Amino acid sequence: MNDRIRYAPLLERIVSAEEASHHIQDGMVVGMSGFTRAGDAKEVLHELAKRAQSEPLKITLLTGASLGHDTDKVLAEAGVMARRLPFQVDTSLRRKINAGEIMFIDQHLGETVEQLRSGSLPPIDVAVLEVAAITEQGHLVPTTSVGNSVIFALQAKKIIVEINCKVPTAIEGYHDIYQTTDRPERFPMQIVHPQDRIGVTAIPIDPAKVVAIVETGMEDSPAKIEAPDEEIRQISRHLTDFLLEEVKRGNLGYSLLPLQAGIGAVANAVLVGLIDSPFHDLTMYSEVLQDSAFELIEAGKLLFASSCSITVSEKWYHRFMQNLDRYRDHIVLRPQEISNAGEIIRRMGVIGINTALEADIYGNVNSTHVHGTHMMNGIGGSGDFSRNAQLAIFVTKSLAKNGDISSIVPMVPHVDSNEHDVDLIVTEQGYADLRGLAPRERSPLIIERCAHPSYREALHEYVREANQRGGQTPHVLEKALAWHIAARETGSMRTAFKTS
Amino acid sequence: MNDRIRYAPLLERIVSAEEASHHIQDGMVVGMSGFTRAGDAKEVLHELAKRAQSEPLKITLLTGASLGHDTDKVLAEAGVMARRLPFQVDTSLRRKINAGEIMFIDQHLGETVEQLRSGSLPPIDVAVLEVAAITEQGHLVPTTSVGNSVIFALQAKKIIVEINCKVPTAIEGYHDIYQTTDRPERFPMQIVHPQDRIGVTAIPIDPAKVVAIVETGMEDSPAKIEAPDEEIRQISRHLTDFLLEEVKRGNLGYSLLPLQAGIGAVANAVLVGLIDSPFHDLTMYSEVLQDSAFELIEAGKLLFASSCSITVSEKWYHRFMQNLDRYRDHIVLRPQEISNAGEIIRRMGVIGINTALEADIYGNVNSTHVHGTHMMNGIGGSGDFSRNAQLAIFVTKSLAKNGDISSIVPMVPHVDSNEHDVDLIVTEQGYADLRGLAPRERSPLIIERCAHPSYREALHEYVREANQRGGQTPHVLEKALAWHIAARETGSMRTAFKTS
Repeated sequence: MNDRIRYAPLLERIVSAEEASHHIQDGMVVGMSGFTRAGDAKEVLHELAKRAQSEPLKITLLTGASLGHDTDKVLAEAGVMARRLPFQVDTSLRRKINAGEIMFIDQHLGETVEQLRSGSLPPIDVAVLEVAAITEQGHLVPTTSVGNSVIFALQAKKIIVEINCKVPTAIEGYHDIYQTTDRPERFPMQIVHPQDRIGVTAIPIDPAKVVAIVETGMEDSPAKIEAPDEEIRQISRHLTDFLLEEVKRGNLGYSLLPLQAGIGAVANAVLVGLIDSPFHDLTMYSEVLQDSAFELIEAGKLLFASSCSITVSEKWYHRFMQNLDRYRDHIVLRPQEISNAGEIIRRMGVIGINTALEADIYGNVNSTHVHGTHMMNGIGGSGDFSRNAQLAIFVTKSLAKNGDISSIVPMVPHVDSNEHDVDLIVTEQGYADLRGLAPRERSPLIIERCAHPSYREALHEYVREANQRGGQTPHVLEKALAWHIAARETGSMRTAFKTS
Repeated sequence: MNDRIRYAPLLERIVSAEEASHHIQDGMVVGMSGFTRAGDAKEVLHELAKRAQSEPLKITLLTGASLGHDTDKVLAEAGVMARRLPFQVDTSLRRKINAGEIMFIDQHLGETVEQLRSGSLPPIDVAVLEVAAITEQGHLVPTTSVGNSVIFALQAKKIIVEINCKVPTAIEGYHDIYQTTDRPERFPMQIVHPQDRIGVTAIPIDPAKVVAIVETGMEDSPAKIEAPDEEIRQISRHLTDFLLEEVKRGNLGYSLLPLQAGIGAVANAVLVGLIDSPFHDLTMYSEVLQDSAFELIEAGKLLFASSCSITVSEKWYHRFMQNLDRYRDHIVLRPQEISNAGEIIRRMGVIGINTALEADIYGNVNSTHVHGTHMMNGIGGSGDFSRNAQLAIFVTKSLAKNGDISSIVPMVPHVDSNEHDVDLIVTEQGYADLRGLAPRERSPLIIERCAHPSYREALHEYVREANQRGGQTPHVLEKALAWHIAARETGSMRTAFKTS
């Protein structure tokens, strides 16, 4: 362990996961590493589920984003989790959230740290952080994500370290650890290009706060990326066409602007689609790198990628770990305070590509709530990017549930990104460029370009009736949510207008 | 005129407003100075209304924000306006917008300039700018607002200047004119404190673009600030109580953080309320200064205010103009690209105080659309601030229309600031501190603290029924908009539940 724990006094803090877990007590606020399944602490929290069988134990759990290793599932099912933020993707946890048993605070991933700094959230009691090494100064070298680990380490009275011996120590140097200060004194983040480094390579802490170190050896849970189907490939083609149009109009060059793509199959496929495009010398300023980023680097298309995490398939995980020197000049990992900072996203004019659950005829997007009520995953970083992007692009297939659900609806019953934040909607049918358009101009465009043909006439009919009522954003309030009501009651949105 | 037009070659460009107006042709995009009735060009555009009687003349009009002198009314009624952005407050224009006769693009006031830079909006053909003077270099000294004049001057092929001889030339020096660059090369805005200056005092232009100069002499249309009633004073007291609590919790000091207050009686009264508070050495980083800012300066409470415009009553307008040297060290006026820049607002952690039209039981705010469909004014700068503020505060009276309308509703039918952006809702009933709360925790708090007692039971009843349906954000979709439907049909929201 001496090559991983280079600050000798900490060698004596090595304990079992079970022992380490006893620093976490009932009622505490725990901040854990982990962002989109990458770099999560993998063992200590699981011990809480065991302990909860014989002692009262409920905690508030904060992370960077989602976790692997069923940690959310295990903690939710054991009843350990009272509150959870800022993001999750687990089925069991989701069920308890929607049952009102676990309080879930859905947050922009770039804002949790702000709320911790300003006292809008209670402070972290214990941080549980996965690291690859501890430096000579006792500082912490993260693994495949940085997440919120910097603020967790700063605020926590106690830090529990999970030192992952499976991650090569050569990962040191990938991270650019910078943190802003508490207000009122705060300074510009001097990042102008994705490759700019403004920080150090390890998280500075007072080593005396490290109360326990646990040796671990599990890999990150691999990303589950389905192969793109024909509809996803169509979405990718439409998006490439739009970007080419922007080049023709003189709004972009062939290197575009730094790209961001949310997690998931569609965003991944869209990036893969750029391999065979005329674009070149691309950069990314994103919160997560999926397989597509590595494929673009290998294809010589992607010069540099700034991210908060690396969330890839098993194949790419191993290639990355075995070739850390190869990718070193192409990738930097940052805290989400920086990767998701509106300041930098706006400055660079990032092209943000995120997935919508559904969009309405005026361009409002629901990213989170099924039927407007039931939480899917959370808003994640989509808002951090779409609000500040030069081009805020939302992608979705026009249909879901074998056609029973239209992703283009009269009114979304929950708004995550509103009309001001949505520049382009892309489905397999085409794209609607909403920039500079009034709501009454957007509705026919979205219907014709994005809605599935089998829903178009019903949408047009809604617009006709709504326009007769007047307004900047015409609606027939009695019918605005009828499709969602029908879907909930009958399983199909079509019953809302077929029977009427 | 030699003291106002110090670049001699431009002296020969002085013409009548009528003559100047002929540089504006049918179909053009016109960018005009003016922000919340301050510093608007006052004569040239009115000539278009006359010309439109005898020639086809339709334009797109962009400004900083709202205008005085009935310019929007005159242009709307003359049929000259085809498109309007990013904000308006005029009754006649509003009627035509809601009838679908004029296309209105409602925008965050800080984003219009971004969209012009990136090609998301068509470029400006002609700029019409009110100035106090033209410098030796031919650069333009604005008057009581800066608005979007910098980008308009930069993009326009032709600039028409209205030189307002009523504004003392001593206003020179009040402005800090800085503009970012077009992407991809853009740099941090190096403003850390409201008083930091990073620019020059006049708008740099190529004087050859000035095709006409018109002498004018009208004052800005005065702000209409009603005296605060008891409910408004209650709102102000609740807000002060909350800020004092934040000081006690150690989240703020007695100098708070830079304050922003939207336009209108409530925001003005809230600031006036600080005169008799224990807070001191305050600063503002705002988009508009109302009478309250001057009263706070006079009371020795406000050290410095950064703004985009000065929109005050006749009394304060004259005091300001007659005492320009007195306020010189207390005020700076900036382009809205800077006054409304998320980068700076987030960095400083501004305390943003804006008015809601209505809020729902989960903290989503509608600032713009009556009944969810009909445009009131526009989102203005409220989103620029609330999205980036350390504390995003929305204020509203709990009732409107003699109690027929509740400002706290089950679901807002239009979302301008969503749950993520709203930290505090304040009505005359009290305040609801939503920070760190899940939706199910927010609803009882908002109902008990903010809703009028006469609507509370109906709201609780809605929540009970919604909670039975489950979800992160429970709703009864069939009833979610029933109050708005009732209000539209019967004039009163009460009929939605009294008769059920």
